[in-house]
Amino acid sequence: MGKKSAYRVAVVGATGAVGERIIDLLHHTKIPLGSLKLLASSRSAGKTVTFKGKEIKIEEATPESFEGVDIALFSAGGSVSKKLAPEAVKRGSVVIDNTSAFRMDEQVPLVVPEVNAEDIKAHQGIIANPNCSTIQMVAALKPIQDAFGISRVIVSTYQAVSGSGTSASVELEKQAKDYLAGKEMEASILPVKGDKRHYPIAFNALPQIDVFEKNGYTFEEMKMINETKKIMHMPQLKVSATCVRLPFFRSHAESVYVEVNEQGLTVADVRKILENAPGIIVQDNPSQQEYPTPLTAEGHKEVFVGRIRKDPDDERGFHLWVVSDNLLKGAAWNTVEIAEQLVANNSL
Amino acid sequence: MGKKSAYRVAVVGATGAVGERIIDLLHHTKIPLGSLKLLASSRSAGKTVTFKGKEIKIEEATPESFEGVDIALFSAGGSVSKKLAPEAVKRGSVVIDNTSAFRMDEQVPLVVPEVNAEDIKAHQGIIANPNCSTIQMVAALKPIQDAFGISRVIVSTYQAVSGSGTSASVELEKQAKDYLAGKEMEASILPVKGDKRHYPIAFNALPQIDVFEKNGYTFEEMKMINETKKIMHMPQLKVSATCVRLPFFRSHAESVYVEVNEQGLTVADVRKILENAPGIIVQDNPSQQEYPTPLTAEGHKEVFVGRIRKDPDDERGFHLWVVSDNLLKGAAWNTVEIAEQLVANNSL
Repeated sequence: MGKKSAYRVAVVGATGAVGERIIDLLHHTKIPLGSLKLLASSRSAGKTVTFKGKEIKIEEATPESFEGVDIALFSAGGSVSKKLAPEAVKRGSVVIDNTSAFRMDEQVPLVVPEVNAEDIKAHQGIIANPNCSTIQMVAALKPIQDAFGISRVIVSTYQAVSGSGTSASVELEKQAKDYLAGKEMEASILPVKGDKRHYPIAFNALPQIDVFEKNGYTFEEMKMINETKKIMHMPQLKVSATCVRLPFFRSHAESVYVEVNEQGLTVADVRKILENAPGIIVQDNPSQQEYPTPLTAEGHKEVFVGRIRKDPDDERGFHLWVVSDNLLKGAAWNTVEIAEQLVANNSL
Repeated sequence: MGKKSAYRVAVVGATGAVGERIIDLLHHTKIPLGSLKLLASSRSAGKTVTFKGKEIKIEEATPESFEGVDIALFSAGGSVSKKLAPEAVKRGSVVIDNTSAFRMDEQVPLVVPEVNAEDIKAHQGIIANPNCSTIQMVAALKPIQDAFGISRVIVSTYQAVSGSGTSASVELEKQAKDYLAGKEMEASILPVKGDKRHYPIAFNALPQIDVFEKNGYTFEEMKMINETKKIMHMPQLKVSATCVRLPFFRSHAESVYVEVNEQGLTVADVRKILENAPGIIVQDNPSQQEYPTPLTAEGHKEVFVGRIRKDPDDERGFHLWVVSDNLLKGAAWNTVEIAEQLVANNSL
């Protein structure tokens, strides 16, 4: 496809938490927008959304919806993507998919623009947006890898409920109110919608995000492990993860241990590299108690890094505290950023 | 001191969160109680507490309070311990101190009974109770060390606000109510009472517990590092920690990575060792979504371990999720347990 003067964009899952933020971000996108089509399930079809002063009616997503669409941003769950993304590609759209449906497909680039924007060019119709907790971690790891090389990562996450959808946020709010009113908390969504058992998340911590795999890791943990290796092009990188859901609404935090190849580095060396990295804001001044938190990262597109420390025993080990808005850089913003790169590089 | 038929016990800080729980636990202690003296600051003096059906008047703690006291359980803050613990020892009491005042003193045993009960015998008047987050971790590490040897620990914590005192719990409750009512949250206690800046803890995560040290670690993180080496008698053990305060009231959780010396071990090997360890309850059945959480651990004296996994890349690496009630095993219960051992071994 040659460079166009305007692009026809569709958002699939326009009424979801991520879809809504994609639409917000498209207000200010560098992409010259020819038209915007908003798609959702039949349940939401007929509702309207105001975009740049114009009412846009939400349509039911069908294979035919993608006729004439240049870029389709999918964020309506894995089963919708599996069914409709190939239909969109068949009709000439480039799909940027925000679900796990195609992420580990060898023919599908898995992209965080600050890390592997080059991979976009090799797409065959579908580009996958990584898991939220993976995106912010690799954004922080890539500049360190480029400068010093890295060999090992051990991460423990602190993840917001909005990563599990709007219903999980509603559940946290309801449970918190009940608990504070001295009432019994009811749990029917978290840790995993549709799984066997549910536990209260309010004033609690659940060491399960997504379903368990046979190896005892959760699917969320395996996503972080496998996606990190793919995005960084480092199949040999040692990665392990423990993923924990916590009672806050927005932004994931991560305690990341990383081993670099170079010896003799100082905290100042690592901090300097991160300060100059794209999309990263270093907030790290212990004497002034400056560090990122989920509440302060909310609403921002960047990845925040603080608590940069050298391991007390390992000459090559460093610890980072990485925080980012899971709905923005972790989802909607990374998706729109990929679309912008796609257009800027004329890679459609 | 010879074995006695009854022991005169004093609780210093009787009105605090830990002190109250010590009094609760003394109802069922194996120690033959001759008398119970309840001590606090002048502010609380005069209040009464019912113990086994009898009213006990709280007295102001002074040096003379310890005349005739066999065992003094201190839990009223570091400055009170520094001032009064030596006075108690001078008067013949054995002090079990729940603050950080004497923990790293070479002449003071630092004890978790399941780990190093033998150290009690060497006391010179003061025995220190470790930091809450350290206690539950070493309780889980010791059986693994005994069975297979360990060489390295990397821990990220998920800590309840009650570790920062009753006022922090009150602050979380107030902030949560304000947030849910759409009001601005006010912060004046956490992360550290008296430190320069305060941040809301409700629906947030604060990567600071206690004040920052010059090396960029917090005092809480250094406590975990140094106390673990001392309790385990392993100055060469590699330990690093990231400590995070979270919006729940009771029980700390920890994501612990441990490297063992023995190769070729399975998850079943590690699980079996933990299942047979004193004071440990293994809750680890991924297919049934069984794992410990702060809410389920609350009110229990044991240390709960779940999510036992082998590291995907390191033949010697294992991951554990360790949860325990920070006010019980993390404080009051460990203190009473030390006192019981002291009496059982006739080590006064």
